[in-house]
Amino acid sequence: MRHILVTLPELNDAHRQKLREAGASCEMRFMEAKDVSSADIASADIILGNVPPALLGAPEGLEFFQLGSSGADAYVAGGVLNPRTVLATSTGAYSQTVAEHALAATLMLLKKMHLYRDAQARHEWTDFGTVGTLDGAVVLVVGLGEIGSYYARLARALGAYVIGVKRRSSAKPDCVDELYLTDELDGVLDRADVVMSVLPGSAATAHFYTAERFRAMKQSCIFINVGRGNAVASDVLEAALRGGEIAAAAVDVFETEPLPADSPLWGLENLLVTPHASGFYHLPATVGRVVDICARNLQAYLSGGEIINVVDFKTGYKK
Amino acid sequence: MRHILVTLPELNDAHRQKLREAGASCEMRFMEAKDVSSADIASADIILGNVPPALLGAPEGLEFFQLGSSGADAYVAGGVLNPRTVLATSTGAYSQTVAEHALAATLMLLKKMHLYRDAQARHEWTDFGTVGTLDGAVVLVVGLGEIGSYYARLARALGAYVIGVKRRSSAKPDCVDELYLTDELDGVLDRADVVMSVLPGSAATAHFYTAERFRAMKQSCIFINVGRGNAVASDVLEAALRGGEIAAAAVDVFETEPLPADSPLWGLENLLVTPHASGFYHLPATVGRVVDICARNLQAYLSGGEIINVVDFKTGYKK
Repeated sequence: MRHILVTLPELNDAHRQKLREAGASCEMRFMEAKDVSSADIASADIILGNVPPALLGAPEGLEFFQLGSSGADAYVAGGVLNPRTVLATSTGAYSQTVAEHALAATLMLLKKMHLYRDAQARHEWTDFGTVGTLDGAVVLVVGLGEIGSYYARLARALGAYVIGVKRRSSAKPDCVDELYLTDELDGVLDRADVVMSVLPGSAATAHFYTAERFRAMKQSCIFINVGRGNAVASDVLEAALRGGEIAAAAVDVFETEPLPADSPLWGLENLLVTPHASGFYHLPATVGRVVDICARNLQAYLSGGEIINVVDFKTGYKK
Repeated sequence: MRHILVTLPELNDAHRQKLREAGASCEMRFMEAKDVSSADIASADIILGNVPPALLGAPEGLEFFQLGSSGADAYVAGGVLNPRTVLATSTGAYSQTVAEHALAATLMLLKKMHLYRDAQARHEWTDFGTVGTLDGAVVLVVGLGEIGSYYARLARALGAYVIGVKRRSSAKPDCVDELYLTDELDGVLDRADVVMSVLPGSAATAHFYTAERFRAMKQSCIFINVGRGNAVASDVLEAALRGGEIAAAAVDVFETEPLPADSPLWGLENLLVTPHASGFYHLPATVGRVVDICARNLQAYLSGGEIINVVDFKTGYKK
């Protein structure tokens, strides 16, 4: 009988029941990720949920590892997992929460609400003048996976013209007005009123937004990053915002997290800092979606069916 | 030959040309509202744009007064205008800017962005937990005029279920899922996740949101006011927010404007204060829409055609 370790957080009874039914032929143990030991991992044939990567050490016996997270970057590094382990993510479950966070940040900056909130703290009745709108704006979504596509649909619903940029060639999906490959980004960067980036963390996307790319954007452009922090070097972002290369930015992910208290980014008026808060289970609907993916994939794994969201160890992306 | 005084702000040459063509048979003079004297008003047969109400004194010769604003409350008070003057507003021109401001404020509060901005000022990496969404939320739009309808469409595009409340009976417009009369509001108040109020300033709507009405709302409810400040007494709003009767509010209009520096409202963490900034010409598209309405109505007045947005002096509303 296979042993399944479940570390998914915030489960209710219905969620547990659903997972138990999917793994009816196995023994299932529920633990909090923070309480997991190396021995717990060594005795598990299957893990549902994230565990600290440092505890893994490429366990021989781990057949199937279904993450509760959308990203897998911490688990594809060398020595963390045995290459024979089937690794899958819960990408898709987080699309709504991340995309809605990004949309709220976009509107907040376009409407200068960050400046109004600051003025409120000073008890100051100041009018900051002209505001922007998504209606008729050109929105560039860099990284057109599930989150990017969700955001694209929201932005279009509010009147935006959406250009999608993705790594791999495909037919243009309905959620965008134009589609380009990542290689072609520099040809469209200067058209964007909003650049919304949701690149995953991988070697190819490290420091993707160079000083040149920020210079290529409109000075009125708004930049949003809800992907991974390593896509932008802190000092490059700071210089672009201080130098007026772009108008404002909202960033939820940083090269170093938590963002150190002495980081100059905190004090930039035209930067909205949020503490990697767009995802997780902050939207109550998310946990149910994670459980759905985990139960579906567990059942598929045990019955030899098709597993979704399988990670390619070489690229760190979905296969 | 009739004399037309134009005080509309931020006109470009194309706007002036359009107004001149609409009033080709008249003499047209352009002035800034702040430079207008009683003598200027006395010599005008027609005014396009707002002038200080205190200067008016019910001028006998003023035939047609086309405001550049959406509201007319300052002009329907006794002694300001002669009841024979035809008074019209530019309502409709401001729908987009006000509705989009209200939407940005709604999302900002649902996603706790006001708390994240405050934490940023303290260089503090703090997670504020669960957030809300418009997707599946019940949004109550109180005052279903052009702004309210615009907001309703935006909210529905993001997945909300919209209930409209209006003063006068009509068929349910497509922008709402349910429609009620103002008298029926108390029957639906407890269903709302968001109450978005855009009531005009009139005697009937003064202190419309009583302590009882805030108590009737869900404790998780978000309240937005972009109508007129007198719809909510400051102390009632403060008590509702401090007492947790509702979760948070965003208010752009106040009983006293500017909001006095010593008002306790400034310091409420769960209140977003903006300085009556949702309207005006903050969205560049707005001025063109105001000019369109003014030119259209001027031509209609001069040719005996139908004037839109005529104000009823008795109610302060559109006739």
